[in-house]
Amino acid sequence: MVVKTVTILGATGSVGGSTLDLIEREPERFEVLALTANCDVAKLAAAAIRTNARRAVVADAGCLADLRDALAGTGIEARGGAQEICEAARMGADWTMAAIVGLAGLAPVMAALEKGGTVVLANKEPLVSAGEIVLAAAARHGATLLPADSEHNAIYQCFDFARPERVRRIILTASGGPFRDWELAAMRGVTPAQAVAHPNWTMGSKISVDSATMMNKGLELIEAARLFPVAYSALEIIVHRQSVIHSMVEYVDGSILAQLGPSDMRVPIAHTLAWPDRMETPMAPLDFAALGRLDFAEPDPVRFPALRLAREALEAGGARPAILNAANEVAVAAFLSGRLNFLEIAAISADTLERYDPAAPDSLDAVLAIDAEARRYAVERVKDCVV
Amino acid sequence: MVVKTVTILGATGSVGGSTLDLIEREPERFEVLALTANCDVAKLAAAAIRTNARRAVVADAGCLADLRDALAGTGIEARGGAQEICEAARMGADWTMAAIVGLAGLAPVMAALEKGGTVVLANKEPLVSAGEIVLAAAARHGATLLPADSEHNAIYQCFDFARPERVRRIILTASGGPFRDWELAAMRGVTPAQAVAHPNWTMGSKISVDSATMMNKGLELIEAARLFPVAYSALEIIVHRQSVIHSMVEYVDGSILAQLGPSDMRVPIAHTLAWPDRMETPMAPLDFAALGRLDFAEPDPVRFPALRLAREALEAGGARPAILNAANEVAVAAFLSGRLNFLEIAAISADTLERYDPAAPDSLDAVLAIDAEARRYAVERVKDCVV
Repeated sequence: MVVKTVTILGATGSVGGSTLDLIEREPERFEVLALTANCDVAKLAAAAIRTNARRAVVADAGCLADLRDALAGTGIEARGGAQEICEAARMGADWTMAAIVGLAGLAPVMAALEKGGTVVLANKEPLVSAGEIVLAAAARHGATLLPADSEHNAIYQCFDFARPERVRRIILTASGGPFRDWELAAMRGVTPAQAVAHPNWTMGSKISVDSATMMNKGLELIEAARLFPVAYSALEIIVHRQSVIHSMVEYVDGSILAQLGPSDMRVPIAHTLAWPDRMETPMAPLDFAALGRLDFAEPDPVRFPALRLAREALEAGGARPAILNAANEVAVAAFLSGRLNFLEIAAISADTLERYDPAAPDSLDAVLAIDAEARRYAVERVKDCVV
Repeated sequence: MVVKTVTILGATGSVGGSTLDLIEREPERFEVLALTANCDVAKLAAAAIRTNARRAVVADAGCLADLRDALAGTGIEARGGAQEICEAARMGADWTMAAIVGLAGLAPVMAALEKGGTVVLANKEPLVSAGEIVLAAAARHGATLLPADSEHNAIYQCFDFARPERVRRIILTASGGPFRDWELAAMRGVTPAQAVAHPNWTMGSKISVDSATMMNKGLELIEAARLFPVAYSALEIIVHRQSVIHSMVEYVDGSILAQLGPSDMRVPIAHTLAWPDRMETPMAPLDFAALGRLDFAEPDPVRFPALRLAREALEAGGARPAILNAANEVAVAAFLSGRLNFLEIAAISADTLERYDPAAPDSLDAVLAIDAEARRYAVERVKDCVV
């Protein structure tokens, strides 16, 4: 068996935890080079010790002393500071999980791509806000990008990259979120607690709200356009409340290939970890008779304007997806802290896109500048809203 | 573009017609070597002329004179007799559709395999009754067997032949037939007209009755065991009334790959015709919102004993699948002519399997002898039944 060297950027979050779970089930198959975290020293040190990692890194340099103490006598290197996260990414692992939330994850992704291995994307920002830049870096260095989120991973498993011209449609499935059956008027009064109660997945509050507005699916539409060489018009979204079919690819002959599975991130992560081989996961097999039925419906563009905003941003290109992503983050935070009502989340994004229209970014720094400026615009727009 | 030479054994039946439809849509891509039929001279000659076939063959030598007349002046060779069907199969087409109904199709399949091309199986008998013999011939001659029926074609599209040990389950979907929701007592009184009214597919009466008894799915279980290298215990059947998911393959990581599509044989045939490439078919894309829902349920072993009979025949091996197939054909014919009630169809197969237990066949002739003898047993059993 060939041992695969692995690095987890963002090892103490939900995706990082799922990844560690899989690696620890087959320790003879993987060798951990580096684990990184922001500042959760106890969790990071414990994981580094369990997996016998070569290095553990905290992004917050102020946490380094604690990390050194926690790892004293273990032989595991302790490092701290944002630059050290990028250094960890440059250790050249065969396989790198990029699970750092937000644009902070962008520079480490670029650093990992430099080494030409397999880089697994668990967050949207690299492809939504800096799609062309990330793809160009992957191509330049011969790196392989694999998607870890369930929809794109499903498409990856079904997509014939040798014959993209034979693909007629990509059908992204969407749970529709907790308000898929609500009246528009009722959605105005949604509380943060209602919005974060996702029916199928246990996720953080930001992504749960994105699921409730369907902005999550809009951003995934943009990601899909980056990952899979098809016309934008070939990208469709269907509401499938059970989230059992994770997405589908239709070919010109009428055949549709779909990937189905339990709602557990370990399934797509295991796919990327073993790829092109497969590895066991501890999931019980899907029981179709117990599921009983799978439902489908058109998404409602009136109640979920985020879908239109995302498609327009994709089609206009340039800085538009980065602005949408930044404005949406500001709006979701404002909603969660009670400063916006639910329907205003998309309105803030739409307003920001209307007022701010810079040139397309051509570097990582340009993306970061556009992101920062879009946030300033969005914050101003939030101030104009009264809940 | 590389032109593919094709031969259709059984060109005037339903599968033959679907195959011709596809070939005639892309005439620059295919060159027809031979078309064969039993005795439908008018249809055969018309198809041969339209596709500019090199040769047309009727199995019934008594129809040859008419065929000669119909093809006079066209330059297309006319031939007749069962041996000439095998000769047509030996012309060495790159791609051969084997769509001759019943065991009559077995010798032509073996002849086509001798030439080492791609042979597409549209009927169950070659794999059910002579599975080991057909597979051994394919391996010996380096021929590729592709399945045209929708379930096995779906599995073929989802199965990783490079890593069969990573497959955990194959899930065959079954429509459940027209009586899936009936009470056992009511099923006794089913009429032939009720039994041939299949909810999703337009098919011949024999296969429609097999679908109503679910013997069709039982025979498909045996076929799947021949085509895909997995343990018999890894083969499952689920009732899925809409027949939109044509079958599924589950991997050890919990990922399930499925193929979905319209209920039109041109979809799987096109897959085999263009394989490993794809070709266009005239089907409208599936509309999931219009479909609304897909349902799943366990098959009922009490109302559908054919499923158990087929699994037992598969597991016992040897001559058992051939006997099951032969007895079932006799029983279905007797049901269609009013000499058996619906529930007795499976009973005749069970009785025949109980009374006749020859050694495993080691040749095509041995298979044919077992088939004939099983039919004699079954005919005797039918005589004992009083509707």
